[in-house]
Amino acid sequence: MIIDSLYERVREKGPICVGLDTDRSYIPSNIKNESKSISEEIFTFNKGIIDATKDLAACYKLQIAFYEASGLEGLKAYRDTLLYLKKEGLLSIGDIKRGDISNTAKAYAKAHLKGDFEADFITINPYMGFDSVKPYLEYLRDGTKGLFVLIKTSNQGARDIEYRESEGRKIYEIVGDKMSEMGEEFIGEFGYSSLGGVVGANNIEEAIDIRKRYPKMFFLVPGYGAQGGTGEDIKKLMNEGEGIVVNSSRGIITAYKDLEMDLQEGAREATLRMRRDIIGR
Amino acid sequence: MIIDSLYERVREKGPICVGLDTDRSYIPSNIKNESKSISEEIFTFNKGIIDATKDLAACYKLQIAFYEASGLEGLKAYRDTLLYLKKEGLLSIGDIKRGDISNTAKAYAKAHLKGDFEADFITINPYMGFDSVKPYLEYLRDGTKGLFVLIKTSNQGARDIEYRESEGRKIYEIVGDKMSEMGEEFIGEFGYSSLGGVVGANNIEEAIDIRKRYPKMFFLVPGYGAQGGTGEDIKKLMNEGEGIVVNSSRGIITAYKDLEMDLQEGAREATLRMRRDIIGR
Repeated sequence: MIIDSLYERVREKGPICVGLDTDRSYIPSNIKNESKSISEEIFTFNKGIIDATKDLAACYKLQIAFYEASGLEGLKAYRDTLLYLKKEGLLSIGDIKRGDISNTAKAYAKAHLKGDFEADFITINPYMGFDSVKPYLEYLRDGTKGLFVLIKTSNQGARDIEYRESEGRKIYEIVGDKMSEMGEEFIGEFGYSSLGGVVGANNIEEAIDIRKRYPKMFFLVPGYGAQGGTGEDIKKLMNEGEGIVVNSSRGIITAYKDLEMDLQEGAREATLRMRRDIIGR
Repeated sequence: MIIDSLYERVREKGPICVGLDTDRSYIPSNIKNESKSISEEIFTFNKGIIDATKDLAACYKLQIAFYEASGLEGLKAYRDTLLYLKKEGLLSIGDIKRGDISNTAKAYAKAHLKGDFEADFITINPYMGFDSVKPYLEYLRDGTKGLFVLIKTSNQGARDIEYRESEGRKIYEIVGDKMSEMGEEFIGEFGYSSLGGVVGANNIEEAIDIRKRYPKMFFLVPGYGAQGGTGEDIKKLMNEGEGIVVNSSRGIITAYKDLEMDLQEGAREATLRMRRDIIGR
């Protein structure tokens, strides 16, 4: 099962997901000057980051918004990056956060779990209802694909809806309870389900409560660094269960600026520092 | 303001939004045979529908999932269709239902309110929180763009989250109250805001309650036909306020099959029937 591959890579390399949120303003001028198209420019940047970090990253997450922002050229780079990750035997997460009625969700599943934009995992927004999640599950059944469903996100605005209480449960618990139940069908050999959850690390006590409530849910954790989660926090969370991968995007892909290194050295150094911060090696 | 243009077209032509949810299985074999690429095939189909209905439709809605499902070729057709609508002076809605943290939402706004995928209106999922809506508002300020934010959707699963009660309000009311408040800044000359809402017509009493609660919110109404909303229902809803456009997708674009007509005759006949059903002319 795909979730077992992710688990093993986390054990082997550390719990780091490198976020390829490639805003074009991050791309160094030498890459821009040497590229013949926008898609080449973005892909060359991504390939540089991937090559410099592949022994340190459990997986790579592509936030599709930054590719859509460059139109067809951006999406060509999105496709090419996913293809390159596949060729290199690396795991990918398409951070697409789609959510729609079932007929439409079927089309999204086809778009992002096969075809041009095929990723190993995708993120999904379940807040329109649980029928908007079901069409993706057929891709989980043969073990080749996985999902990360939004449970509790790391933004301020999470308090607007996700934290509301209804009949004794927070809305994110209502979502999490259902996803945990739906995930029972897809448990791998290490005890985690291929139906995982996005759980922010900005408030670590809450993240630990969620971990205890859903021991079989693999967590994709945003919010490290810029949004407030520390290495100590992640350590505490990992003590409760190892099925976690922590995303860092800007902290890695723009590190070359702050560290005054070249793109690849900067990304590698930032990833090493993040690993030391979280797992001490 | 863009919402005034939509209002005027609804008054002039009727409250119909033609949904270009172009699944490739809908495309007649003659178009497939004559096309040199998938993008040409999808665009030719869409152009046929548009040309046959443009005097009857207030606007066109493209569900992007069906284009993403054909990868880069599909998205090329998505872009080309939006360009064609613009060239013809017709209004477009990009049904993208994006929702993400603010930095990412900025990238989505750039992607879908300018550039390759520019539409006049887009749909947005606010359930991650209200900070995920704000980045789009700068595009509303100069009057050229509009939003339809998910309030109450027409799927069964809407009951899972949207209908939950928290401190005396349903979740969709919490969202609607906030969107109504945020929309005050963008009210056009006919009293409706360019920050509109998606409100399903599957339960008409609820839709009327929502209309009364948010008299300045323009409604994009899914759920007519296949999902249960009738012409009588829509009539009742319009009696409470004219700021409504009702979407029909499959009912129009696949009508040629049931009516045993050619593609364009079928789409036109289905649109005429829908108009008669709703406004009696």
